[in-house]
Amino acid sequence: MDRNAVVFSVGNEVVRGHIVDTNSAWLSRALAEIGFDVRGHAAITDDSADIARAVRDALDAGLLVICTGGIGPTVDDRTREGVAHALGVELKLDLDDLARLQERYSAMGRKFPEGSERQCMRPDGATLIPNAFGTASCFLARKGGSGVAVLPGVPREMKGIWDEELRKALIEAFGLPGRWHTRELRVFGLPESDLNNRVADLLDKDGAILVDDAVIRLRWRVLAETDEQADAVLRPTLEEARKRLGELVFAAGDVSLEQATIDALRNAGLKAACAESCTGGLIAHMLTNVPGSSDVLLESAVVYSNEAKQRRLGVKPETLAAHGAVSGQVAAEMARGALAAGGAGVAVATTGVAGPGGGSENKPVGTVWLAAAMGGDVKTWRLRVPGDRELVKSRSARAALNALRLAALHGRLPDAIAQWVSPP
Amino acid sequence: MDRNAVVFSVGNEVVRGHIVDTNSAWLSRALAEIGFDVRGHAAITDDSADIARAVRDALDAGLLVICTGGIGPTVDDRTREGVAHALGVELKLDLDDLARLQERYSAMGRKFPEGSERQCMRPDGATLIPNAFGTASCFLARKGGSGVAVLPGVPREMKGIWDEELRKALIEAFGLPGRWHTRELRVFGLPESDLNNRVADLLDKDGAILVDDAVIRLRWRVLAETDEQADAVLRPTLEEARKRLGELVFAAGDVSLEQATIDALRNAGLKAACAESCTGGLIAHMLTNVPGSSDVLLESAVVYSNEAKQRRLGVKPETLAAHGAVSGQVAAEMARGALAAGGAGVAVATTGVAGPGGGSENKPVGTVWLAAAMGGDVKTWRLRVPGDRELVKSRSARAALNALRLAALHGRLPDAIAQWVSPP
Repeated sequence: MDRNAVVFSVGNEVVRGHIVDTNSAWLSRALAEIGFDVRGHAAITDDSADIARAVRDALDAGLLVICTGGIGPTVDDRTREGVAHALGVELKLDLDDLARLQERYSAMGRKFPEGSERQCMRPDGATLIPNAFGTASCFLARKGGSGVAVLPGVPREMKGIWDEELRKALIEAFGLPGRWHTRELRVFGLPESDLNNRVADLLDKDGAILVDDAVIRLRWRVLAETDEQADAVLRPTLEEARKRLGELVFAAGDVSLEQATIDALRNAGLKAACAESCTGGLIAHMLTNVPGSSDVLLESAVVYSNEAKQRRLGVKPETLAAHGAVSGQVAAEMARGALAAGGAGVAVATTGVAGPGGGSENKPVGTVWLAAAMGGDVKTWRLRVPGDRELVKSRSARAALNALRLAALHGRLPDAIAQWVSPP
Repeated sequence: MDRNAVVFSVGNEVVRGHIVDTNSAWLSRALAEIGFDVRGHAAITDDSADIARAVRDALDAGLLVICTGGIGPTVDDRTREGVAHALGVELKLDLDDLARLQERYSAMGRKFPEGSERQCMRPDGATLIPNAFGTASCFLARKGGSGVAVLPGVPREMKGIWDEELRKALIEAFGLPGRWHTRELRVFGLPESDLNNRVADLLDKDGAILVDDAVIRLRWRVLAETDEQADAVLRPTLEEARKRLGELVFAAGDVSLEQATIDALRNAGLKAACAESCTGGLIAHMLTNVPGSSDVLLESAVVYSNEAKQRRLGVKPETLAAHGAVSGQVAAEMARGALAAGGAGVAVATTGVAGPGGGSENKPVGTVWLAAAMGGDVKTWRLRVPGDRELVKSRSARAALNALRLAALHGRLPDAIAQWVSPP
């Protein structure tokens, strides 16, 4: 086998453009990690003849086929039939797997839906790939030196099954001659172009910069047999990058900014509270996505109205009258109020114009005030976010997280929380 | 010509998964608007033999081919060569087009880059499609009753050229018998398999079911010349589906559950408040993603700790002691507290075990209690969410939104908020 692969995404809705296929890109990168070179993607309709033709052609060309989508319980889910046809075998019902699925429904206190047994069928001779993330069973079928694996289309399920099951199964079936090892630093607080100027010489052809809403990932990769070999090659570069970037680096590896924030707070023995106007619960949502965050986050008051800002956080009516709700003064009182109310060690607050309405000449959409309070100290910062409601919320929430993280690291409020955030 | 089409995205970076291809989805919808039925997409490497093979096969099958990418000035841009090869013709340099490009560079005060004349080559016999958005020239070549059009990969350029030039050129070359019209119902509150059993007979080959975390979209489409004609064909089916599904249908068309919830609350003149433990701010985040939600959402108290549940919402210590924080009784007191504190017309509360830790035999991970309060009334429901922390939060938040929506529609608390949610 050439270790070449192809990725298929099955579904009329993908072909018609009502869903953007992100699975194929994700799987291509995942396949590279275990030594496969992806030669192409295709989106195929729910027509089982189309599926069968595409799979058969790929198998004939010696390609490993990874299919996503079309394995749910409904009549228009035809991937199983198409793949069985391509392999020239019948579909068989796995009674053990059916018992497991029925148990799953009864544990949920739900009736087993008519027709759902289809999800436990697979081509004769194919190996079951368990799905702990949903109801549709997956499988891997070998054919000659090649094979075909079938996964759900729901990205969360697809990724979970890849990570937990299919990756191992493919390595077992086809061997692992070495793999692409990746090392990553995650950076927050400066623009991509500035970062690039600081580390360009450390990024050769296998280095990369990826940006996702102000969180920048610096990646390096190397083909090696073991983690130790990869470390030996990449460690000096990573150490140099860390030296240059200091506390702009919030994590090494696959750690989110919210996870790094929770970790820093926990290490510092600090409990946090939030007061959210324009972020509307997003700071709390991000922090509570981290398992165990309940030890660290006491509460968040999502206070849109002026009345709630006064009642919940003790913001003074005269401050609101003099400066308006979107002001450093109100942000500061919100942060002080959140700190006092919950007995927290550190608190952050946000108030801003998320848009699309509500902007004015002095306070255009994207104007956001952040404040943090710790002990007797309060600091405020102003952001101007160049984007829509979603970006205003997300950028402000990330800046607030970084304020919490830096406060925990320093044991006091930081002066700056990002290069692109102004002091008051 | 069958008016069937296929969309190709050319580029190693797409195939390797470093770029997510959004062009193909966009073009599929755009092609449907002028009456073409897209039969598939493919991502192809920069290898001109691969490109030639894919284009030739599609033309042989009578498909219109739209290619994006691989027409820049660099040596790895091979789409022109591949397409010419598929058509069995030579590439020719268009001298008029070259003069235009040279002028463009001199107008920008820039030297004409070496090799850039490649961008003015096209297969012999192909028609120039001008590109006002960049330097690479595009073209449309007819072959038999079918043809192939080539566009840049940069989404902004691709869309601009489609809108300004290619759309017209395709209509001129192949006529415009009508366009594909789509109608959609969005459904919440029953499992996909149950929905399928209820409406399977209404879904022919042009109907589809899409699921995104318990929000189900039912879509139909029809080829028609006008909106009115499309309505005339699809209205009876949509009406029948609405009749069968009742208030499980929360919207027609592109409306999120959070938008439908805000709309229902606004129509009912109701202000809402939330109390969130296990959803950790997600309900507020979803509601505040809707522009103008500040009119409707008064506040959300994100209260993880028992202490905050007591202080913020008046949950009684004896209720916590007797039933535990994850209980219908505590959820009910949270909802009552949220309703009272903010002067809201309706309130929802969540408390549950989001995991991965914190589960027990009686209250496994995924156990969530929801409560809603309205006037003097309080109701509670129990969910068992079969999934990870992210899914527990997301499923619970959606169920809470639906409780708000139904309360606003009925003017009183609903008995059931979803088929998969148990009464207490």
